Amino acid sequence: MSDLDVLRGGRLAGALDETLQFTSSVSDDRILANAVRKINIVHLLMLLKKGLIKKKDAMACIEVLDSMPEDFPLNVELEDVHMNIEAYVSSKAGDDSGGQMNLGKSRNDQVATAIRMVSRERLLELLDEIIVLERTLLEIAKANTDMVFPAYTHLQRAQVVTLSHYFLAYHDAIARDLERLMECYSRVNASPMGAGAVATVILDLDREYVAHLLGFAGILENSVDAVTARDFLIEILSLLSLLMTDVERFANEIILWSSSEFSFIEIPDEFASTSSIMPQKKNAVVAEVIRSKSSIIFGDLAASIHMMKSLPLGYNLDYQDMTPKLWEGLKNARASVRILGKMLKKTVFKKDQIEKGIGDEMGAADLANYLSVDSDIPFRKAHHIVGLLVRSAIEKNESFRKTVTENLGKTAERIIGKELHIDPAKLDLILDPHKNVESKKTRGGPSPAESLRMISDRWERISSYSSLVNGKREMIEISEKALQNEIKNLKEVK
Amino acid sequence: MSDLDVLRGGRLAGALDETLQFTSSVSDDRILANAVRKINIVHLLMLLKKGLIKKKDAMACIEVLDSMPEDFPLNVELEDVHMNIEAYVSSKAGDDSGGQMNLGKSRNDQVATAIRMVSRERLLELLDEIIVLERTLLEIAKANTDMVFPAYTHLQRAQVVTLSHYFLAYHDAIARDLERLMECYSRVNASPMGAGAVATVILDLDREYVAHLLGFAGILENSVDAVTARDFLIEILSLLSLLMTDVERFANEIILWSSSEFSFIEIPDEFASTSSIMPQKKNAVVAEVIRSKSSIIFGDLAASIHMMKSLPLGYNLDYQDMTPKLWEGLKNARASVRILGKMLKKTVFKKDQIEKGIGDEMGAADLANYLSVDSDIPFRKAHHIVGLLVRSAIEKNESFRKTVTENLGKTAERIIGKELHIDPAKLDLILDPHKNVESKKTRGGPSPAESLRMISDRWERISSYSSLVNGKREMIEISEKALQNEIKNLKEVK
Amino acid sequence: MSDLDVLRGGRLAGALDETLQFTSSVSDDRILANAVRKINIVHLLMLLKKGLIKKKDAMACIEVLDSMPEDFPLNVELEDVHMNIEAYVSSKAGDDSGGQMNLGKSRNDQVATAIRMVSRERLLELLDEIIVLERTLLEIAKANTDMVFPAYTHLQRAQVVTLSHYFLAYHDAIARDLERLMECYSRVNASPMGAGAVATVILDLDREYVAHLLGFAGILENSVDAVTARDFLIEILSLLSLLMTDVERFANEIILWSSSEFSFIEIPDEFASTSSIMPQKKNAVVAEVIRSKSSIIFGDLAASIHMMKSLPLGYNLDYQDMTPKLWEGLKNARASVRILGKMLKKTVFKKDQIEKGIGDEMGAADLANYLSVDSDIPFRKAHHIVGLLVRSAIEKNESFRKTVTENLGKTAERIIGKELHIDPAKLDLILDPHKNVESKKTRGGPSPAESLRMISDRWERISSYSSLVNGKREMIEISEKALQNEIKNLKEVK
Amino acid sequence: MSDLDVLRGGRLAGALDETLQFTSSVSDDRILANAVRKINIVHLLMLLKKGLIKKKDAMACIEVLDSMPEDFPLNVELEDVHMNIEAYVSSKAGDDSGGQMNLGKSRNDQVATAIRMVSRERLLELLDEIIVLERTLLEIAKANTDMVFPAYTHLQRAQVVTLSHYFLAYHDAIARDLERLMECYSRVNASPMGAGAVATVILDLDREYVAHLLGFAGILENSVDAVTARDFLIEILSLLSLLMTDVERFANEIILWSSSEFSFIEIPDEFASTSSIMPQKKNAVVAEVIRSKSSIIFGDLAASIHMMKSLPLGYNLDYQDMTPKLWEGLKNARASVRILGKMLKKTVFKKDQIEKGIGDEMGAADLANYLSVDSDIPFRKAHHIVGLLVRSAIEKNESFRKTVTENLGKTAERIIGKELHIDPAKLDLILDPHKNVESKKTRGGPSPAESLRMISDRWERISSYSSLVNGKREMIEISEKALQNEIKNLKEVK
Repeated sequence: MSDLDVLRGGRLAGALDETLQFTSSVSDDRILANAVRKINIVHLLMLLKKGLIKKKDAMACIEVLDSMPEDFPLNVELEDVHMNIEAYVSSKAGDDSGGQMNLGKSRNDQVATAIRMVSRERLLELLDEIIVLERTLLEIAKANTDMVFPAYTHLQRAQVVTLSHYFLAYHDAIARDLERLMECYSRVNASPMGAGAVATVILDLDREYVAHLLGFAGILENSVDAVTARDFLIEILSLLSLLMTDVERFANEIILWSSSEFSFIEIPDEFASTSSIMPQKKNAVVAEVIRSKSSIIFGDLAASIHMMKSLPLGYNLDYQDMTPKLWEGLKNARASVRILGKMLKKTVFKKDQIEKGIGDEMGAADLANYLSVDSDIPFRKAHHIVGLLVRSAIEKNESFRKTVTENLGKTAERIIGKELHIDPAKLDLILDPHKNVESKKTRGGPSPAESLRMISDRWERISSYSSLVNGKREMIEISEKALQNEIKNLKEVK
Repeated sequence: MSDLDVLRGGRLAGALDETLQFTSSVSDDRILANAVRKINIVHLLMLLKKGLIKKKDAMACIEVLDSMPEDFPLNVELEDVHMNIEAYVSSKAGDDSGGQMNLGKSRNDQVATAIRMVSRERLLELLDEIIVLERTLLEIAKANTDMVFPAYTHLQRAQVVTLSHYFLAYHDAIARDLERLMECYSRVNASPMGAGAVATVILDLDREYVAHLLGFAGILENSVDAVTARDFLIEILSLLSLLMTDVERFANEIILWSSSEFSFIEIPDEFASTSSIMPQKKNAVVAEVIRSKSSIIFGDLAASIHMMKSLPLGYNLDYQDMTPKLWEGLKNARASVRILGKMLKKTVFKKDQIEKGIGDEMGAADLANYLSVDSDIPFRKAHHIVGLLVRSAIEKNESFRKTVTENLGKTAERIIGKELHIDPAKLDLILDPHKNVESKKTRGGPSPAESLRMISDRWERISSYSSLVNGKREMIEISEKALQNEIKNLKEVK
Repeated sequence: MSDLDVLRGGRLAGALDETLQFTSSVSDDRILANAVRKINIVHLLMLLKKGLIKKKDAMACIEVLDSMPEDFPLNVELEDVHMNIEAYVSSKAGDDSGGQMNLGKSRNDQVATAIRMVSRERLLELLDEIIVLERTLLEIAKANTDMVFPAYTHLQRAQVVTLSHYFLAYHDAIARDLERLMECYSRVNASPMGAGAVATVILDLDREYVAHLLGFAGILENSVDAVTARDFLIEILSLLSLLMTDVERFANEIILWSSSEFSFIEIPDEFASTSSIMPQKKNAVVAEVIRSKSSIIFGDLAASIHMMKSLPLGYNLDYQDMTPKLWEGLKNARASVRILGKMLKKTVFKKDQIEKGIGDEMGAADLANYLSVDSDIPFRKAHHIVGLLVRSAIEKNESFRKTVTENLGKTAERIIGKELHIDPAKLDLILDPHKNVESKKTRGGPSPAESLRMISDRWERISSYSSLVNGKREMIEISEKALQNEIKNLKEVK
Repeated sequence: MSDLDVLRGGRLAGALDETLQFTSSVSDDRILANAVRKINIVHLLMLLKKGLIKKKDAMACIEVLDSMPEDFPLNVELEDVHMNIEAYVSSKAGDDSGGQMNLGKSRNDQVATAIRMVSRERLLELLDEIIVLERTLLEIAKANTDMVFPAYTHLQRAQVVTLSHYFLAYHDAIARDLERLMECYSRVNASPMGAGAVATVILDLDREYVAHLLGFAGILENSVDAVTARDFLIEILSLLSLLMTDVERFANEIILWSSSEFSFIEIPDEFASTSSIMPQKKNAVVAEVIRSKSSIIFGDLAASIHMMKSLPLGYNLDYQDMTPKLWEGLKNARASVRILGKMLKKTVFKKDQIEKGIGDEMGAADLANYLSVDSDIPFRKAHHIVGLLVRSAIEKNESFRKTVTENLGKTAERIIGKELHIDPAKLDLILDPHKNVESKKTRGGPSPAESLRMISDRWERISSYSSLVNGKREMIEISEKALQNEIKNLKEVK
């Protein structure tokens, strides 16, 4: 009886080679192999504990599984990793022992469990990288509380902030991405094992024991739900897409800033490329690829939502094509987050060029607010007066400060019927970018003191997130040790 | 000076009518009007508290705002709801008072705050409906713990469960949707007010006071982030898309079940339609429209992620076109959840027809598991024997039970070289659907006892979620009362 | 018998108000009303011609239909425009005549036909606007064959072209969009009428006569396909999304060019907006909204593909929710194309600022090519030498031309072991942007002469496209007249 | 000088390994290698023809290129296939000759050309498969003009057609997909070569000669457009997504039909799989995977549109990540189309089971139409009468024919005040499914004669499409021979 016949012989005539190639998941299954291996061990331990198999069969299988090489052969004819592992174990431990491996379980609960185990690991790796990126952003923010920086709206220079303040904005956005992924983790970290094909099995299983030894926080209870649920997969891809929206916007600004028109930054050579025909070029290729990875993840999200549409409950083979999209997404997100941080760390912000971009008209809104309060005129009027002064400065191509100094009085008279005056020192406080920024002490504002407060606050927050991530990883490691202990005990009592 | 000139006069020449039509958000802004009204009141109270405006101006504006009719005129020439409200108040309270309304704030922080306030309300309404749907599912589950039901994989009948168990599966999926939306709420419920255009303002504001009176749990701190962040919007649409994936799958099964081939259910007439040309038709149109609403929400999600791509930080007008997609999504999701529950409540499950669909071969997997343990043979062999018996039953077009009874012995002999026997009473326990289901007592399995346990557990969980939702609503109502008190105090001390 | 009962009475008990609200298409159907009106007239004429109804009934209905006001009442209880029109005609012409209107047809073929008729019109309007935009682009190209302009790769200045050449690039991309939409038109312009509900009807109809009088080029033959097919709708949305990708990229460049860092253009005031708090701002809001409209169209495409997934052949109510997305897409695309052209027409390109952005290092690639051929050295070596010279110029912060003049010899010696020389006049020809551009006479290159040739070629091509579009419109008008003639004849022979 | 230094040495310091891994396209470039090889040969021939390089250099490179093994080494450090080929040729032919390979061209025009060449081939292969599928559908249609089949609307049995008619519906939908892909081919089949990096080159090239020898129908003229345009790629993915919408709907119906509830078909064993735990299962896994491949293609489309958003003209590295999505799409679409046809060819339609599903109430609409004309009563009344009869038949659980025979008279009297009668032979003609179908002779209807006419018409149409596809393939082969001739001539004149 050939391997394939083991699987199909009972019910179906031979399969077409083309069918196997088209429907087999073997090429995408290597990534699941280690998790499936572990699940099999734990499942066997549970069967033994419940008295459902003989110790010698459990031992024989577990010994093979425990020393199974990572590159054990995966045969496309056997459809997937599950059947391949059974065939591998049977070939080493004999058909009688190997033939027990799928007693009381199904590929349906097993694959769902394995995907969750790998997702868990990849999520923790991603969380680590996000934490590193956040710390990098805070370090740069800390070193640049005094570097004024133009904030834009509609890509038009709007008001002055600092580089520190700007980086804190990106930090805070990405911190929400981290928070979302942390919350999602708890939905990933539940064990479907024991749900069987869809309705549990007729044997008396101990699902909690399996879940515990596999490091899960609990079980995914309802058996139909347990084999059906792929919402965690779409949720992860949604959150990756949200994360990458932030990361990609940052990348796009880096491209903008490194254009010769902006010229705000110098990207380190090792993150840039040149052209084979235009030797003067220095292209922000890393940032461009971050941008395209974001699109790939979005496509993966779209594909997975589309795949799920109108599927009845229970396992459908469509699910199989979702999983590689999840791995693609996690890999691309992690690589993007990682390289963005590394690049930023070495990016030079060109202070002179950046300051050149900050005209004193960027204080216009502040001037309007100040005049309204100080001179006791309606804000809308103050706004109008300042608007006219800006327009006049642009038309005369002179500095806004000069125009204000010379024309505030008569412009105000024209609009509100009375002259307005402003103390030159006060005007300087508003229009000088450094002083302007310093005076914005409202909570969440760009003043250096406020930035330092926010940095220190976020630094602590990251530390506690980092502890949480480590805690989750330790929980897996502890279960890993518990599992090794069970195996050891089993062998010793032999 | 025309209304429009108030806004543009200082800086720009006249706008084209076509430009206004193309870029104005007025037609989508009515939904924000009440929130913007409230924000203006609270902002004025704060300015007064900080001594930045005169009491008479604050009073004049607040009185107009407090009694502003819901259908106050929205003029497209004034671009958006913000300028319209200033114009309205100015027309009633005079330019001097009305002209103070935008002191110390911007449309950028204001619109972000208003969208969050409306989102909050709509989310709570949606959460209410989900809770109602969950309770409906549990009620149906409770009433049907004994009704056997076929569970499918690959749309092929797989194993027997109960209607109760099946409804619990949908319940549990939707419960995760609820959980996600609850978590998201906390990211929505933070106030951007005080961030100004992008860099806060030069005046000394009290952002916490504003946040508190608007019922927010806190402020969205960094000012650049506060006016930029639309991740909450995409997050909501992502979660709605996830929710609708579950709701729509249910709808699709209803369409399937109501086909004459399945004929599992009778949809109540009031949720169906007939045909203008084929009078015998009874179409599950409500379920079809639920399915299409899910697609619309997915499109809204795709649009909003696409819109966000590569936008620099700070406000960009692109954001404006995201907001109506959010309202569309929230409305469609709520209507779908609501009508699904109502329809299910009145749907009749046709016991006879459903039971007809459950052949005794659906116990085949259980038989294989049982034989393996009971007769002490490898599961794979038992699986093979049972597979041959199923094939034989199909070929002879006779019942599986008959084939097993007559042929188990010799088939086993052919495969494993020894006869196997099974006690008829035991066979009945496995192949009779009701007994089969009762014997599956593993946690999360379909036995009626286990269903009842799960129903009671979930019933409690829903209650605590319901309390949480009510708590969130009360927090808004309390702040509303606090606001009314502040207004009253203001008037009294007059 | 109430209106609703006419429709449902035979088969179903009363419908729930909420069901009607949820499933009715009335609010989206107004746009189809005129097409449905015409279809009814033509269908009645055909029934009469085939002797299937009496002349008095046909006449009575046609007279009502012919004078039906555009804002005739649409009652949500009657589900859709089809039933509303029957009810309206019956109320005017009596139940006996009105009751004949749906003899031999169905809502399924009728709605598919109506959507195609409206799509046809909207497509022609869009094609008109694209042609206008293309002509605008060519006019600007024609006026600017001498204005040098930086071409970018990776948003880094790469090589010199002209504004003319750049606009021709956008023209050519949009011309392909036009071509695609023209091809699509022929798939839209086929009549489903006569397909009935799904299987044609038992009466002997004349489908070609109906198609002809409705201005279609032919019929959509197979009846199941005719009522099912919505591929034309998704195809249109796909092509709109492609079109908008081009239009939106242009809009994004306009936003970039109007930033103060680029400062390449001055957008006319009537296409910009200012800020309520920052009076110095002039925002390219029209371009931003074009960008977001592109995203909305993409979302509509995603929604419609998602909606179609896994639907069985035949009409499904899901289709109903696709149609408004089509109208939204066509409307947004047309408005975007139209306003982009108008804005470009008035946009001022700031020659001085643009030329400032063109350094002589943009000729570096050309220099490498020239040196390789002229000095007979491998291109890769020439590329290396020029690369070193660019690097040196940047490091010394001096002009590339100066560096080349002074250092070409010794740099070459270092790399290839022999000195290289270049004639200063030749160097000028390569590094001076105007001369550089003039010398690029390869077909499709930026030389003014080549641009003029391309402009003239495309101008003719547009004219022939314009004739094709007009031809399609005339075909509809001719059928319209033929229809009026038939009605007139009918009345006269009375 | 290392390979990498050849490329970067002139301008940039060393690149980071991680950067190379992140931005290199080498792993995706193998598929382009042969096209790039050919482009290099043709480009060298053109340079030689124009007198821009020496014969010995051209010869040396061409000889290496002509015999380059398919699996020549691709080094990730060299970024992409273009630099790898130059490095390979240089290592064989010497730096002096190899160093000439990129004279007068750029990676930007080269990669765009190569992608178009590979797309061309893959499109032709796909077109071949679609033609095979169409022929299969017609063959099945031809063999089944007499097999009645239920047509559904809203997944409710609506009217009787034949299997032939139903397959023709799918045929016609897929024929439009073919038509679209054919039209798209002409937009793919244009050569960007000669556009250089973005602005052509300063040398005098012969773009038409290159295009001709590479088998293109012409050149993509404007140089900026030529290196920028990826609309062909998105267009292909759009059309694949449309195609797969049809293919996937078919697959979904196959899953439905093979459920035990429908039981319309028996899928051949070689296209099905069984379950590892439920031996009675026979799952339509091929159809499920077709469904998921459709989603993957949709995701690839979404990703590519998203990637394109807001990119400035000229090459951006983002484009690089689009190309693998195109190959993935073309491969999945081709495999799906191919296996669907193969599976259908062997699928057995179970006549008895299908006919069982066709009740005589499916002739109700026809009866209403017939009664209206025959008895001269308004259709709406006839519709109402028939509706009541259907309801009555359902309530009494008796055949529709019996109810009509017994109750038509009095039901009519109740509704229209007069009795109606129908000749039993006529009634049989309407309600007997075979006779019903035969009598529907309207063009596009289900009568066997009409089906045969449509099959024959489409058979011819496919033949002419097949000739067109072959013609396109021959054009490439002819250019291939012309190229071999040029190489041969070159060597002979040596």
